[in-house]
Amino acid sequence: MPRRTLALSEVYRLLEPGPVVLLTTARNGKVNVMTMSWHTMIDFEPPIVGCVVSNRNFTFNILKATKECVINIPTVELAGKVVGCGNTSGRDIDKFKRFGLTTAAASKVNAPLINECYANLECRVVDARMAPKYNLFILEVIKAWIDPSRKQPRTIHHTGKGVFMVAGKTIRLPPKMK
Amino acid sequence: MPRRTLALSEVYRLLEPGPVVLLTTARNGKVNVMTMSWHTMIDFEPPIVGCVVSNRNFTFNILKATKECVINIPTVELAGKVVGCGNTSGRDIDKFKRFGLTTAAASKVNAPLINECYANLECRVVDARMAPKYNLFILEVIKAWIDPSRKQPRTIHHTGKGVFMVAGKTIRLPPKMK
Repeated sequence: MPRRTLALSEVYRLLEPGPVVLLTTARNGKVNVMTMSWHTMIDFEPPIVGCVVSNRNFTFNILKATKECVINIPTVELAGKVVGCGNTSGRDIDKFKRFGLTTAAASKVNAPLINECYANLECRVVDARMAPKYNLFILEVIKAWIDPSRKQPRTIHHTGKGVFMVAGKTIRLPPKMK
Repeated sequence: MPRRTLALSEVYRLLEPGPVVLLTTARNGKVNVMTMSWHTMIDFEPPIVGCVVSNRNFTFNILKATKECVINIPTVELAGKVVGCGNTSGRDIDKFKRFGLTTAAASKVNAPLINECYANLECRVVDARMAPKYNLFILEVIKAWIDPSRKQPRTIHHTGKGVFMVAGKTIRLPPKMK
């Protein structure tokens, strides 16, 4: 994809709507990817993100140990692969090979960027103190990439049990009530 | 609205897609509402939710003091009121009166339900330890209500600067890859 840098001040615009994302990690030269839907912005700039990675997930220990990941944002064209990544474990298979996802090197972390995703957010874990109790990791986005050719990316939003809402039209409501 | 109880195990299906919500609180007989977009599920059942309420918001101190709130989920028909509630403060005005929102009593908390919203989640603050550093509150949903007549509620999802994505069609992808 034709990637360009996205200003860190713009990152919240990608995550705040609540898309399903693909979280990549790497350890000892082995890459992994998991599907994640439980995340929230916590601050604008630097962009701070809270995300929930269950301790049952292969990614949990990798994230704790490496303190690095990439949040990759897929669109509806990738929905089948996203579900596949969510229903398999990196303990058992190479999900990239299985689902035909390709990677590129990130600039600031060892976790890879997924080429097929329209945006990629390189992150460091800045606080893992809530991981034991809530599976909650606090991330800082340190580098953001976007495909500028994708004007209205149709992200997917999980409504449970394999049903996804696909991003519809956008409306603009100027804050005239200030 | 014709409200019925929603099973607590179903609550994640409403919040996981990332809708903008209206957070209501009450203190000393005075009710307030704020627009909130930074939230995430943390656990399924009981439903645990993380939400960010800035310490600049009037709601912050009320939430800390009362440890109660209601998450009300609006649809696109309410978008103008949602933006209005997001750009005003309960310090200055009665937002319910200003924006024509009506309330009903909740069953387990003092914060009110908003009648115009298709779902209402009564919550208790179960952990406020991350509030000083991250403005992050951990809520438990203790009672959930839904309008069963709304088959495909078109929620709104903030993409920044007054632009909202409106929930589009849904797709079903059975988890056959297990």
